[in-house]
Amino acid sequence: MERDVIRRGRLTGERTGEMMHFLSSMGADRYIADADILVDIAHVLMLSRQKIIGYEPARQLLTGLLDFYDNGIPAAAFDDRFEDIHAGIESLLISTIGEEAGGRLHIGRSRNDEVATCLRLRVREDVIRQLSILISLRQVLLNLAEEHIETIMPGFTHLQYAQPTTLAHHLLSHEAAFSRDFQRLWGALSRVDQCPLGAAAFASTSYPIQRELTTEMLGFGGVLENTMDAVGSRDFALEVLSDLSIMMAHVSRICEELVIWSSNFARFVELDDAFCSTSSIMPQKKNPDIAEVMRAKAASVIGSMTSALAITKALPMSYNRDLQELTPGLWRGIQDAKHSTRLLIDMLSTATFNSSAMAAEAGKGYSTATDFADMLVQKHNFPFRTAHTLVGKAIQNGTLDLPSLDSAAREMGIPPLSTTGITPSDVSDALDVRSSIDRRRAPGSPSPFAVKISISSRQKVLSEDSAMLDKRQTSYSDAIQRLIRDARKEAGL
Amino acid sequence: MERDVIRRGRLTGERTGEMMHFLSSMGADRYIADADILVDIAHVLMLSRQKIIGYEPARQLLTGLLDFYDNGIPAAAFDDRFEDIHAGIESLLISTIGEEAGGRLHIGRSRNDEVATCLRLRVREDVIRQLSILISLRQVLLNLAEEHIETIMPGFTHLQYAQPTTLAHHLLSHEAAFSRDFQRLWGALSRVDQCPLGAAAFASTSYPIQRELTTEMLGFGGVLENTMDAVGSRDFALEVLSDLSIMMAHVSRICEELVIWSSNFARFVELDDAFCSTSSIMPQKKNPDIAEVMRAKAASVIGSMTSALAITKALPMSYNRDLQELTPGLWRGIQDAKHSTRLLIDMLSTATFNSSAMAAEAGKGYSTATDFADMLVQKHNFPFRTAHTLVGKAIQNGTLDLPSLDSAAREMGIPPLSTTGITPSDVSDALDVRSSIDRRRAPGSPSPFAVKISISSRQKVLSEDSAMLDKRQTSYSDAIQRLIRDARKEAGL
Amino acid sequence: MERDVIRRGRLTGERTGEMMHFLSSMGADRYIADADILVDIAHVLMLSRQKIIGYEPARQLLTGLLDFYDNGIPAAAFDDRFEDIHAGIESLLISTIGEEAGGRLHIGRSRNDEVATCLRLRVREDVIRQLSILISLRQVLLNLAEEHIETIMPGFTHLQYAQPTTLAHHLLSHEAAFSRDFQRLWGALSRVDQCPLGAAAFASTSYPIQRELTTEMLGFGGVLENTMDAVGSRDFALEVLSDLSIMMAHVSRICEELVIWSSNFARFVELDDAFCSTSSIMPQKKNPDIAEVMRAKAASVIGSMTSALAITKALPMSYNRDLQELTPGLWRGIQDAKHSTRLLIDMLSTATFNSSAMAAEAGKGYSTATDFADMLVQKHNFPFRTAHTLVGKAIQNGTLDLPSLDSAAREMGIPPLSTTGITPSDVSDALDVRSSIDRRRAPGSPSPFAVKISISSRQKVLSEDSAMLDKRQTSYSDAIQRLIRDARKEAGL
Amino acid sequence: MERDVIRRGRLTGERTGEMMHFLSSMGADRYIADADILVDIAHVLMLSRQKIIGYEPARQLLTGLLDFYDNGIPAAAFDDRFEDIHAGIESLLISTIGEEAGGRLHIGRSRNDEVATCLRLRVREDVIRQLSILISLRQVLLNLAEEHIETIMPGFTHLQYAQPTTLAHHLLSHEAAFSRDFQRLWGALSRVDQCPLGAAAFASTSYPIQRELTTEMLGFGGVLENTMDAVGSRDFALEVLSDLSIMMAHVSRICEELVIWSSNFARFVELDDAFCSTSSIMPQKKNPDIAEVMRAKAASVIGSMTSALAITKALPMSYNRDLQELTPGLWRGIQDAKHSTRLLIDMLSTATFNSSAMAAEAGKGYSTATDFADMLVQKHNFPFRTAHTLVGKAIQNGTLDLPSLDSAAREMGIPPLSTTGITPSDVSDALDVRSSIDRRRAPGSPSPFAVKISISSRQKVLSEDSAMLDKRQTSYSDAIQRLIRDARKEAGL
Repeated sequence: MERDVIRRGRLTGERTGEMMHFLSSMGADRYIADADILVDIAHVLMLSRQKIIGYEPARQLLTGLLDFYDNGIPAAAFDDRFEDIHAGIESLLISTIGEEAGGRLHIGRSRNDEVATCLRLRVREDVIRQLSILISLRQVLLNLAEEHIETIMPGFTHLQYAQPTTLAHHLLSHEAAFSRDFQRLWGALSRVDQCPLGAAAFASTSYPIQRELTTEMLGFGGVLENTMDAVGSRDFALEVLSDLSIMMAHVSRICEELVIWSSNFARFVELDDAFCSTSSIMPQKKNPDIAEVMRAKAASVIGSMTSALAITKALPMSYNRDLQELTPGLWRGIQDAKHSTRLLIDMLSTATFNSSAMAAEAGKGYSTATDFADMLVQKHNFPFRTAHTLVGKAIQNGTLDLPSLDSAAREMGIPPLSTTGITPSDVSDALDVRSSIDRRRAPGSPSPFAVKISISSRQKVLSEDSAMLDKRQTSYSDAIQRLIRDARKEAGL
Repeated sequence: MERDVIRRGRLTGERTGEMMHFLSSMGADRYIADADILVDIAHVLMLSRQKIIGYEPARQLLTGLLDFYDNGIPAAAFDDRFEDIHAGIESLLISTIGEEAGGRLHIGRSRNDEVATCLRLRVREDVIRQLSILISLRQVLLNLAEEHIETIMPGFTHLQYAQPTTLAHHLLSHEAAFSRDFQRLWGALSRVDQCPLGAAAFASTSYPIQRELTTEMLGFGGVLENTMDAVGSRDFALEVLSDLSIMMAHVSRICEELVIWSSNFARFVELDDAFCSTSSIMPQKKNPDIAEVMRAKAASVIGSMTSALAITKALPMSYNRDLQELTPGLWRGIQDAKHSTRLLIDMLSTATFNSSAMAAEAGKGYSTATDFADMLVQKHNFPFRTAHTLVGKAIQNGTLDLPSLDSAAREMGIPPLSTTGITPSDVSDALDVRSSIDRRRAPGSPSPFAVKISISSRQKVLSEDSAMLDKRQTSYSDAIQRLIRDARKEAGL
Repeated sequence: MERDVIRRGRLTGERTGEMMHFLSSMGADRYIADADILVDIAHVLMLSRQKIIGYEPARQLLTGLLDFYDNGIPAAAFDDRFEDIHAGIESLLISTIGEEAGGRLHIGRSRNDEVATCLRLRVREDVIRQLSILISLRQVLLNLAEEHIETIMPGFTHLQYAQPTTLAHHLLSHEAAFSRDFQRLWGALSRVDQCPLGAAAFASTSYPIQRELTTEMLGFGGVLENTMDAVGSRDFALEVLSDLSIMMAHVSRICEELVIWSSNFARFVELDDAFCSTSSIMPQKKNPDIAEVMRAKAASVIGSMTSALAITKALPMSYNRDLQELTPGLWRGIQDAKHSTRLLIDMLSTATFNSSAMAAEAGKGYSTATDFADMLVQKHNFPFRTAHTLVGKAIQNGTLDLPSLDSAAREMGIPPLSTTGITPSDVSDALDVRSSIDRRRAPGSPSPFAVKISISSRQKVLSEDSAMLDKRQTSYSDAIQRLIRDARKEAGL
Repeated sequence: MERDVIRRGRLTGERTGEMMHFLSSMGADRYIADADILVDIAHVLMLSRQKIIGYEPARQLLTGLLDFYDNGIPAAAFDDRFEDIHAGIESLLISTIGEEAGGRLHIGRSRNDEVATCLRLRVREDVIRQLSILISLRQVLLNLAEEHIETIMPGFTHLQYAQPTTLAHHLLSHEAAFSRDFQRLWGALSRVDQCPLGAAAFASTSYPIQRELTTEMLGFGGVLENTMDAVGSRDFALEVLSDLSIMMAHVSRICEELVIWSSNFARFVELDDAFCSTSSIMPQKKNPDIAEVMRAKAASVIGSMTSALAITKALPMSYNRDLQELTPGLWRGIQDAKHSTRLLIDMLSTATFNSSAMAAEAGKGYSTATDFADMLVQKHNFPFRTAHTLVGKAIQNGTLDLPSLDSAAREMGIPPLSTTGITPSDVSDALDVRSSIDRRRAPGSPSPFAVKISISSRQKVLSEDSAMLDKRQTSYSDAIQRLIRDARKEAGL
């Protein structure tokens, strides 16, 4: 291993392997190694433009860095006897191009701002990808809803059949939640997308650096101004973890439904075999393992966020090494969220919904009793609460038909319904499932009428979100391409 | 107690006090009781305008509700033998104005949409107040920074003296964090500010309600469309708790600093007596208790958020009673955050910063060693890494003066500095604290030059945020005033 | 309000109501007020026996304290302008019996050790009660198991029917979990039951106190020796919260089952009406609300524990005011756990299990397919994995009968079963549900044979646990009675 | 890769790499691979002894397994296209020794009981090691205390100087906390050390297995009886994570002290260079990075525990795949705790405590003011509260000398002290630091007298704990050696 060039001056003391392993962020640094090369390149270009370093060292540094960019960072840079990847890359560069040039890479910056910049570059990329997955997930839900506008099913509250609804209505509820997840992450992106470079250790530097220049080169939305804040704050990471935790709570809710709906109890849905496992002992089993793991992943991301907040709590300014421990949980949370949502897309789009089983259940459990009470209000001017009590009593007495209602009315001391001209067919009409659904036409309601309007307006929102995302993504990749092109030019390559 | 009108129909079974207490949300419902009256009024007005109820019951209902609005909700409504405040208010109304009118209050809605609307109305108010506190807090920090542009202090990394900075620079780092907290909560507000009313149990209703009307009456930003999502989602609460958790992490960081800075070790700050406690046994003690409690409150809010996420995880659609358990933690989180930030404003503005103690420490711990290394780079063309190693070795050998540097140079096999024309006064010039600070002029840096620019730009952002907030606040209170006026008119009052 | 006697010396500074409310622990102190009187009495008795205070002040102090003990602490002591109940009681005593005697109460102690002692006394009582509830809960589960030894039901993995089992077997799995919860809390009790009194602020005192004496008077198991640890540690609270979190996770699992089992899907259980709610709009609804709230309470206790750990994290020695913020969550966690388990006892013992519905489902989903594979292994010497694959393929092809098995065998290139002498009745015998259960006779298995043995051995363990608990409970109450008797004697009452 | 033999029967459906990676527990399974071989060996031996499999397949299976035991498990078994290591090992065995023998490995068990047994074997080993590290850590603290019986330092409450104490007293407070951590983990061990093998999928098996036999072979303390509980419970893991979280909170407290004590503010301790890092830019920096990372690790373990609880919450019986997601966090928690405590031992034993700096501070901040108040009580019969107020006022007025006290007395309307015969030398005697410490002689107090007694009694407890641990450790390793010896014999090796 190359000598760690940072430590060699100030400190003595032999370090054991355990110590180095404990302190090293190398494991997590793999996530930001590519970002680090970009940050190094932008920094060197800026140093050169500001004449802080001369042409020759700039050329040598850029040549070395572009080599890593083009051919990958050598494995030696990841040795965990380096404290981190930044020490690894700088040490390797020095050993390749010599200290005369390589020793100038770190002019006017510190690992503190360097790390913060790398984290933000990488998280920016991750958030963009997650947003893009959310677009696809919402599209799948809208497509499924489109297919199931007429699919009738029991709607639930408290996991009890409540009132009939349509599968489309149910699926749109999930789309609505994921669209807010999209909004939240989009909001977070604006706080991720700020450039801390130039903050150095926390007090910036006496070199005539130009922070706006590196900010622009890396495609950032703005300079993260206060230099103490720039290195000492991690609320961008806490916010992303929070947003992902909330999103994963939504994922877990849909997974819980898929587990219950695919159970022997319900058989509302059949998951594709690829998303299931069998038992090592029970040959007949088909278990919804992926949905279960996703459900658990929600808890894992919550834990990562709890850790991250507890790490940050009560840290004095500015940078403390505690912050390093925040990132492995961040990467885990990001990965868990990414894989879960990606697989959810496929699990949903390959699932088979059992429309006839759903329809068969939709009218059970007196699911249209409210409609009957509403009929009493609408056609017979009952106060709602009286109608509600009457129907409740009839069901408690055993069933929901005219004789039972009459007997409930007598208990309550009001005239039996049959004496007020209500006929058995009035009762059965009011209780009809399909009519119950069709009557619900307010915005966001279960009826095919309302659902069609919803799908069309949700599709519009989705298309706008998608266009907005594409534009941003392009602006980031354009900046990076420009940076590399400029660096090659400066290096004479 | 009035009979609970909701339960009387369907269910028998004597309930014990423990059971009722366990199930009742009354404790937490005090927070939303006032909101409930507004929601009831808007709902009745809409029912009346849509001719779903007649003029007379509408008049009676509004008269009863306006009585509660004007004179307060009677204590009887809060009896925890009612399942919740909604059952309490409805039962009380029925006992006052009779079931003929009172029994029509709940037409075309359910507690599910009612509760969700009340929660959002109340959280909206709380978020607005928290935003307003953040405006004040940021202003206090800017004012303090203004006062301390020239106050020199040691800057920290790892709680070790790192480089000299100014107190203004330090305070601005906190203002930056709180301004992002403002942004986050502002973003959350747009998702809080959606109206679920009309969703009923989850499947909306067959009455010809008009959701846009109640939305407008209550001043909401929009209809929360999908009716299953409207009653079954709580991500608005999770988001607010997340944002408050992150904000409280920031509060805890500044409190940790106040605890350390007011310790015997540092004496950088003297807190006002009002913010301190003494000991019951040690008469000399002056302890920073409020800062300590605030620090702990950060952990409490984190716990509330963890609970809320774990409650939501894996709940199938749509409403489940579990969601009720989410709100007490939400109210606690909101209160803790409110009190903490409000007291922080006062604690900061009454604190006395000990500028001379800070200044005296600013140059200790070789805090300007980087400046010396930078001087070697800038004036003597050293590669930075070589200069860094050289200075590190000199300090390890005991001190940072020319002889020590020369001996370090010899160890490294490079020419002694004194042989290259560097004089003792070059060394001491480079190490001068005030010059070190003044040299740092990049945006966001510690120098008075940079800090002045920062304060002025931060003040501009703050003023814009403040104006934006005022406008929103006005639009909410205008809507509520209009609602009450219209209700009085409709009731002939 | 009486003047707060603790603050009057050292500090000036007007405190606002919000400040006092924020800092005061009064809300939570109601839980420990009774304990505080006991601690005060024991402390005064010890001071008197050690001749640290004279007879007359001792008599007056004890008379005042016994008055509070007998007639309740005056409401004035709970004014939240006192920082805590300890300041309230001392201030009130001084105003009643004068400073000459009342001013001697606090000799040789501090609030730090006083609070820690009160917390431990109260938590000890709470843990004892929780243990006692666990005894009852386990007994209910054993009783139910006894009733349902022959009740056949489908056993689940992944919420899919897996193999048939008995309800007794299922219920015993929950009893096993709760018995470990008992063990954990019993272990925690030994660490709660240590006396910190005499530690004073953290450095003990120069008065000749006798710590063993107060320890014995209050019935504690031992002296919590190191005096810095005595006031600065809260791991006893963290441990209790952890144990309760784990216990509540168990509660939530059984509640999840009750929610699913009482759903329209399953109808395996009918909960008593008292444990259910209906809907404000859907008159037919009977919702398992209490089970849902309990399920959510598990998340609340987890949150309390997370908070408590995050509060404690990184606090330097010894006492910091942060620790005060730990207790409200502790009390909430203890109360939530107590109510939940107490209601669970009643909910289980009043529930009606639908044995016929369970039995009807037990054989569905090829739940005895493993038995058939085992038969091939046992009677026809198949390697298990071969048999497992064969049966899996047959089911994948559509059903589990001899023709389907033969066709699967052909796919695998092995001889069709029908050619090896296996008959259709061999197949149906192997698949018989009741025989499948009866064959499982290993310890802890589902068969009535094994279950009977389990119930009997579990009952024995339960009786031992119960006896052990009674003995401990008696020893605590004996000590307290002795203390009051001695105090009356000393006070000449 | 060998074919996954478990999946081949029941399920079709191509799985993508992402799906397999998502579902596979391979990453975490590395921790239990060695345990799995032991479990397999014990299971086969039992099957053979019970004549469930014949001699020849038993011999072949044992030969294959012992080969893995002796030479390591082939890398191919860890391919993450196997769902887990159990599928990997079984598939590999079958490909080596053929399905005729290899296909009999899984007779009478399931992955559910197999995994649970492997987890418990591995966690047992981890807990034993952690207990052993705690023994060493406590020993280091006792040794340091022994060295520093006479080292005087300021004691803290609220991070303010409170009263003088000794470093030994301070260190013993940490030893006390870690000794309770030892107790907790020792208690947990008894619940970890139960054998689930034979539970199969959850309903045990119809083969005449003998659960007591495998339990004994693997050295477990007992059979985990109920077979549904055996596969579906993870409270042993939750308990270990809770105990480690509490332990890590203790570690974080001592680390916080080391960070503060090694800061420029205090300089109470100098950490060995090996435990520090420098800055990439500030050559003079020596940062306590390892202490900071440890402090953060406490938060990481808390997060793992929160996740694990949230995963378990509301899972119905018996096994659900969610439980797989619990283990990576468990292993991380165990590793983080292990490394942190191991490094803490070395960090403490190589640290240099700056006794003179500590002593110099011990009397500052009026740290002996309580002693003066106590003197007034003891020698001049002041009520304590009066003395406390008097001293508080004097300090508030500026200093603690006779004139200042007299002026405070006048304010309070009591006779000036100088008029009651108190002399300036009485004041200075009462305030003497060393005397203050020496007067504190109650058990657990700071005085060298009391500390010596404490060290000796703590050393006795530690020796007993250590002996108890050694005995247990030996019994486990004896069992494993016996198992391997018996297996070789059976295999004819």
